[in-house]
Amino acid sequence: MSASNPKNSKNEIPSLKSLERDFGQKFAYPASTKTYLQGSREDIKAPIRMIEQLPTRVGEELVANPPVPVYDTSGPYSDPEIVINLEKGLPRLREAWIAERNDTEQLSGPSSEYGVARSKDEATQELRFAHISAPRVAKSGNNVSQMYYARQGIVTPEMEYVALRESMGLEQLRKDPAYKQLLKQHPGKSYGANLPDIVTGEFVRQEIAAGRAIIPANINHPELEPMIIGRNFRVKINGNLGNSAVTSSINEEVEKMVWSIRWGADTIMDLSTGKHIHETREWIIRNSPVPIGTVPIYQALDKTGGIAEDLTWEMFRDTLVEQAEQGVDYFTIHAGVLLRYVPLTADRITGIVSRGGSIMAKWCLAHHKENFLYTKFDEICEIMKAYDVSFSLGDGLRPGCIADSNDAAQFGELHTLGELTAKAWKHDVQVMIEGPGHVPMQRIEENMTEELKHCLEAPFYTLGPLITDIAPGYDHITSGIGAAQIGWYGTAMLCYVTPKEHLGLPDKEDVREGIITYKIAAHGADLAKGLPGAQVRDNALSKARFEFRWEDQFNLGLDPERAREYHDATLPAEGAKIAHFCSMCGPKFCSMKITQEVRDYAATLDADGNPKVPSKVIPIAEVAQEATKGMEEMSAEFRKRGSEIYQ
Amino acid sequence: MSASNPKNSKNEIPSLKSLERDFGQKFAYPASTKTYLQGSREDIKAPIRMIEQLPTRVGEELVANPPVPVYDTSGPYSDPEIVINLEKGLPRLREAWIAERNDTEQLSGPSSEYGVARSKDEATQELRFAHISAPRVAKSGNNVSQMYYARQGIVTPEMEYVALRESMGLEQLRKDPAYKQLLKQHPGKSYGANLPDIVTGEFVRQEIAAGRAIIPANINHPELEPMIIGRNFRVKINGNLGNSAVTSSINEEVEKMVWSIRWGADTIMDLSTGKHIHETREWIIRNSPVPIGTVPIYQALDKTGGIAEDLTWEMFRDTLVEQAEQGVDYFTIHAGVLLRYVPLTADRITGIVSRGGSIMAKWCLAHHKENFLYTKFDEICEIMKAYDVSFSLGDGLRPGCIADSNDAAQFGELHTLGELTAKAWKHDVQVMIEGPGHVPMQRIEENMTEELKHCLEAPFYTLGPLITDIAPGYDHITSGIGAAQIGWYGTAMLCYVTPKEHLGLPDKEDVREGIITYKIAAHGADLAKGLPGAQVRDNALSKARFEFRWEDQFNLGLDPERAREYHDATLPAEGAKIAHFCSMCGPKFCSMKITQEVRDYAATLDADGNPKVPSKVIPIAEVAQEATKGMEEMSAEFRKRGSEIYQ
Repeated sequence: MSASNPKNSKNEIPSLKSLERDFGQKFAYPASTKTYLQGSREDIKAPIRMIEQLPTRVGEELVANPPVPVYDTSGPYSDPEIVINLEKGLPRLREAWIAERNDTEQLSGPSSEYGVARSKDEATQELRFAHISAPRVAKSGNNVSQMYYARQGIVTPEMEYVALRESMGLEQLRKDPAYKQLLKQHPGKSYGANLPDIVTGEFVRQEIAAGRAIIPANINHPELEPMIIGRNFRVKINGNLGNSAVTSSINEEVEKMVWSIRWGADTIMDLSTGKHIHETREWIIRNSPVPIGTVPIYQALDKTGGIAEDLTWEMFRDTLVEQAEQGVDYFTIHAGVLLRYVPLTADRITGIVSRGGSIMAKWCLAHHKENFLYTKFDEICEIMKAYDVSFSLGDGLRPGCIADSNDAAQFGELHTLGELTAKAWKHDVQVMIEGPGHVPMQRIEENMTEELKHCLEAPFYTLGPLITDIAPGYDHITSGIGAAQIGWYGTAMLCYVTPKEHLGLPDKEDVREGIITYKIAAHGADLAKGLPGAQVRDNALSKARFEFRWEDQFNLGLDPERAREYHDATLPAEGAKIAHFCSMCGPKFCSMKITQEVRDYAATLDADGNPKVPSKVIPIAEVAQEATKGMEEMSAEFRKRGSEIYQ
Repeated sequence: MSASNPKNSKNEIPSLKSLERDFGQKFAYPASTKTYLQGSREDIKAPIRMIEQLPTRVGEELVANPPVPVYDTSGPYSDPEIVINLEKGLPRLREAWIAERNDTEQLSGPSSEYGVARSKDEATQELRFAHISAPRVAKSGNNVSQMYYARQGIVTPEMEYVALRESMGLEQLRKDPAYKQLLKQHPGKSYGANLPDIVTGEFVRQEIAAGRAIIPANINHPELEPMIIGRNFRVKINGNLGNSAVTSSINEEVEKMVWSIRWGADTIMDLSTGKHIHETREWIIRNSPVPIGTVPIYQALDKTGGIAEDLTWEMFRDTLVEQAEQGVDYFTIHAGVLLRYVPLTADRITGIVSRGGSIMAKWCLAHHKENFLYTKFDEICEIMKAYDVSFSLGDGLRPGCIADSNDAAQFGELHTLGELTAKAWKHDVQVMIEGPGHVPMQRIEENMTEELKHCLEAPFYTLGPLITDIAPGYDHITSGIGAAQIGWYGTAMLCYVTPKEHLGLPDKEDVREGIITYKIAAHGADLAKGLPGAQVRDNALSKARFEFRWEDQFNLGLDPERAREYHDATLPAEGAKIAHFCSMCGPKFCSMKITQEVRDYAATLDADGNPKVPSKVIPIAEVAQEATKGMEEMSAEFRKRGSEIYQ
């Protein structure tokens, strides 16, 4: 059956111009300044975006509002100083850090059979990324994982970078009186997370060494801006993209990647299963400042022509090397799908819904052998540590509907993932654990507590979970609800779900919707856990909202363009953006305007409660104190002065 | 300032045809049969929608799947037997029930000054609903509230109707073997809710008598299909609509109402503050099968020309009578905004954000008097019980940002609402309590526990809450997350938020997005609480998904049209809807297809593990048991038979 859409099946070479043009939106964030937090050496500079604010008018005076720092995933794309050329790839930020450790060597070319074959393939010549460097690999006997360094007591530049990035200059903000009100924050309920007041490089090192966090950072992905995934840091989100046999082109996938990080994806998984997946991946990695994850079994299966039974360890191994040498930062490996767990899925409504899980289950049954990903796990670890690829231990038996949640198959596999975590850690290989899926609310917390217990506090990385199955077309929302909760309970990274889940492949607008939904979930979790500084942006936006600084309200939001568009749909005039009311209520019914008027009225009184010339905002409390003195003349004065309150 | 949009400011008379045409979608639900559950008398028939399913193909046989019952809010609009004429209004279902109680009398016309004046106003003649009946009122000395009847030990037709509606024929389903698998359900975590196995009329009566639930049902809204709001019943959702000074017409508001109930709104609040709000309300009530709520202070303020200080008890009282005689089922009354609480909002970032709350705060300060809604509360109760209007005690001091959540102002007001609840119950007047607003996740549960404690378990009715302030344009999602949680903790009704919140007035598409989001939250809460039967629809949809019954997957969802549209965006061909794969993965990578193949393979084996002609689906468990016997020939046989698995 051929259902491909001609429009989507072209394989154009990406170009930045075409991306901006196609999407009709600017990469640059409005009212934002890209800055960097300087580390201990010149070449350690972690990005941060500062959102500029308009001043507040207080009487005749303008009082400045300070810029609001936000975590920045967009990489060089939002830096006006850096010229982006997608055909050359991003600047190689980590190249010197990797080289100076002197524990790697550069190969003359790819060492996988498939990698070699592809580099010589003439049919894909025109699609190929032109500036591929020869890959690096650990020198014989060396381990180049961040976990290895951490356990040696070394704070790598990656760790220091991450510490700066997580802290977002909070120490400076605390010293600046302009941030005093914005820094007010409710205590969190941490569910056992240990959130430091300020993240230091040493704290990062300890967390990596303990296995509670990972920095996915393949030595062949020097373009990467390091980030950390762990329960004691900001909750992160992943965005999936990738073509399928049915749809999509390289151009589209690169475009989705760039827009994903612009909207806030912390990592990207390339789940391509269609044509040219090797070439597509190269384009994506070379242009991605965020870690790229893959599910290597997809490509391995593709190499068999789609016959799961024909998969072999040798072919899979070659695929791991091929992808590790391209620079993939984490691999989903379904090594916990054991033969004995497969029967446990028999009474499920939706059986096995993980693609990787079902492939391995089929292989196991067809061969009557144990999963080779499990039996060859030590050999996989050897590859992982030679490039510093992190494990994302796949939940091949995750539930595909709420009825199947938290069952023996799912938790049986989870126990095996814990066993494999311990094994990987013996190799100093970084690990995170994948989680479900579809889980009703009352069963979500158990997923987190079981994971912490059986997987030794390795970071949890969950898909949703979806809290109900009845809303196809809205599964970004059914899952966003579950994601916010499980993020609060301790999940370190949330894998997004788009509105097209279960129905089709996401386009750019679906990616946008999915990412923003998950930014909400992750930020909601940070607030609920009590992450220091997390409330600054909320407070700033709320203050802007109350003061009718519309532009600031848009710019401080997760999606300024959407906010502006929605506002303009009702009140398109430019004047409406400085109006002291909004379209929901109109001028007479605006509560914020009325509250402001009450405050303004307070400002007309002096300390003795007598009218004076307005000069500054006085808290409403003072008015009310006057009120309780029962001064009837205030009422008369109010009427006299305020009879025309709406201009 | 005039920012009105000419397109939106026309005031056309609504007509059903124009609604369907304008929206380009059919009111009728796909593959659905409107049926009724028969009560103890001929005229008690509660609606239920049965979603028909396609059969499952098992080998050569077709095995029927039973129809799935879903709660139906759409009223006569989805009944093909009933001819809808918006100009005449809906059938008057409750008219006989009200009359037979013989405790009301029909007036000769409206008894409010404003109602009389409006009925004679020539300027609005052409907009006026043509078939207004003269209102009814309790006979002198009578109380016509459902709470009064409940406390007398009477199970009214309304209560029996509600019991049938809530139970959804669950008792019959349990006896039918076709529903056995669909009825499997995880235990809930109820947070103290007492969900009966089957809802009976007597249970409803007890809950109403205790004040734990309300049936908003004005005697002047006989078109109403009764529904119940209480923690021990299905979680309900409310959709807001209403024009403002800036935008919207009668036609649009009626259209939003009709589409809202079609998508699943359980009640509608008409928050109009613009032109012709009396006339708009009449059109809405006469055509609404769901309870209509209002905030009477908005109209009262409008009558003063927008001057809060000019509000008087007399004018407000007249407004209550005016609206009660039109048939409004519940009134939001901000009687808890006391003078002494206003100063407590002084240090807030967003002050007072409730429109009603800010109006009353301003009135209190301007007059240096206590809120007249508080001081006249007993007189308000006298009106409520004469028409059976329920209180929705407004949270005028709710937080407008997460920083302001759970503060002294908010909880001070909540205590007063509890005091007023006790007072209303002395009059046998039904009460629910409004709640926030903006609350980060870790502070949501406290809202529920405080409400239960101080408001004596009266039903809680919350707006969201929004768990973060940083996503204007996505506040249906920020609030949907909080709504799911607070619904789980015990909130009885969730007031929706649309994507336009904080930015503009919602159009029909925004209303759709808001309602579906809140249906997800409410259903997620039902599942989490363990509401009997709640999982049937999830199980049915998941089974359909696993069996690639695409049409059933669409039809069983909350928004069939959206699901179909998204599916068709990737694979538009009709053939794709019976394809055994979907566009996310394509045919090779479809986990469900692979799982099905594993099951099919199992079916090729007889009880001794020998190949036989396939006849029925055998659970995967049996295959795996064979596998563990280590029969190598099975592997060979599998390859022989299954070498071409993808047709």
